[in-house]
Amino acid sequence: MTAERIWTAALLVIGDEILSGRTQDRNVAQVGQWLNLQGIRLAEVRVVPDIHERIVEAVTALRAAHDYLFTTGGIGPTHDDITVDAVATALGVEVIVHPKARATLEAWYADKGGITEARLRMARVPEGAELIENRMSGAPGIRCGNVFIMAGVPHIAGLMLEALSGQLEGGAPLLSATIGCWVPESEVAELLGAAEKAHPGAQIGSYPFFREGRVGANYVIRSTDAATLEACRADLVARLEAAGREVALEGI
Amino acid sequence: MTAERIWTAALLVIGDEILSGRTQDRNVAQVGQWLNLQGIRLAEVRVVPDIHERIVEAVTALRAAHDYLFTTGGIGPTHDDITVDAVATALGVEVIVHPKARATLEAWYADKGGITEARLRMARVPEGAELIENRMSGAPGIRCGNVFIMAGVPHIAGLMLEALSGQLEGGAPLLSATIGCWVPESEVAELLGAAEKAHPGAQIGSYPFFREGRVGANYVIRSTDAATLEACRADLVARLEAAGREVALEGI
Repeated sequence: MTAERIWTAALLVIGDEILSGRTQDRNVAQVGQWLNLQGIRLAEVRVVPDIHERIVEAVTALRAAHDYLFTTGGIGPTHDDITVDAVATALGVEVIVHPKARATLEAWYADKGGITEARLRMARVPEGAELIENRMSGAPGIRCGNVFIMAGVPHIAGLMLEALSGQLEGGAPLLSATIGCWVPESEVAELLGAAEKAHPGAQIGSYPFFREGRVGANYVIRSTDAATLEACRADLVARLEAAGREVALEGI
Repeated sequence: MTAERIWTAALLVIGDEILSGRTQDRNVAQVGQWLNLQGIRLAEVRVVPDIHERIVEAVTALRAAHDYLFTTGGIGPTHDDITVDAVATALGVEVIVHPKARATLEAWYADKGGITEARLRMARVPEGAELIENRMSGAPGIRCGNVFIMAGVPHIAGLMLEALSGQLEGGAPLLSATIGCWVPESEVAELLGAAEKAHPGAQIGSYPFFREGRVGANYVIRSTDAATLEACRADLVARLEAAGREVALEGI
């Protein structure tokens, strides 16, 4: 396996409702899965409240540390939607009304009472930004440099991701294979560690569960190289079977 | 309303499986809700991969910035369970085998094949730490100073939180009330902002949704002071009704 550049992204989830536990986040898993397909690894997530300084601080740190930064939340028309202002501050640019976003909103609201000052808030972007169109709502996502500003509503964020599919430079996608055993992970822990060590470039994660009154675990092997993945997977199966364990080859 | 100390906590979620999107996190919402009841505000969440340096870096930053730091994940018996070592590094202490944790594990595994080197990993704690008992598994949670190390499996993390209920110093719990309207939030955005501004000490969050083919939003009013909360809630209801909106007083 040749050494290769690993592309990484961070996700910044913005919203008091996630931190209070009122709303169950769905965007971390959605963005993580989508990034895998783009050959980009989600390497860090932060969740911060609707406070300007906290968003600015997180955007500044994360966009410098990773190839891409995605944000979710805080782009609607109400007073607690402050993401665009905070990203603009972090980038050191002004907030402007994007002409195309304005036109889109005007068309969207033409038969819904027309444009208002509140609705026009959704056309505000950091200067120099491009729009990420989606079919679902008048409010577009926003790309400014390596920062992608997306909706908090998971379905709309998903449409924005769909619009971005294949547009971002990435590396080899992270491949994975899963096997499982109805056995406490503590009984095979050494064997798992040894199998990972024998295959540089592969990682093995162990994910225990309690189900149907029994304990078991799935072992997820990950690698960007298909041959390394398969070698590690086959080796782990062989080691488990040699230890007298029955292996579920598709996971449990 | 008198100014009062606000107690804050951070949560560090440790695990490749959350970042890859394989596993849907449940601990952010669970910890956030539990902290509200303790009078402590979840003020930041980070999710990092199973990489020693990344965990150390996050623990160091978060335990300094907040009154409390909770971690979830990475305390099982396998090679990818490295949370204890990383927290010890961040605290500048050694990792030791805790005598009581060892005794608990020995009793737990007495009729399950006995203690092994892998299982003994779960008795390792940063020097000076106390245990957070739980009824569900042999592996205890760990408290070291203001850092609380918990399991990744949400059910076990929940039992550890239960054991900690009422043990941590906090301030006034954050109270909330929810009302809702079947109206696009863009049509009442200015009214929401004005109602919040009129009641210092209260915040209003607007959470739009698409449901049954219609758009609407819930408005969550939050305050640590019951009278402020009620005044803001009543004022918002009055403003919405004055604007000709029908208000669902319990939210939608």
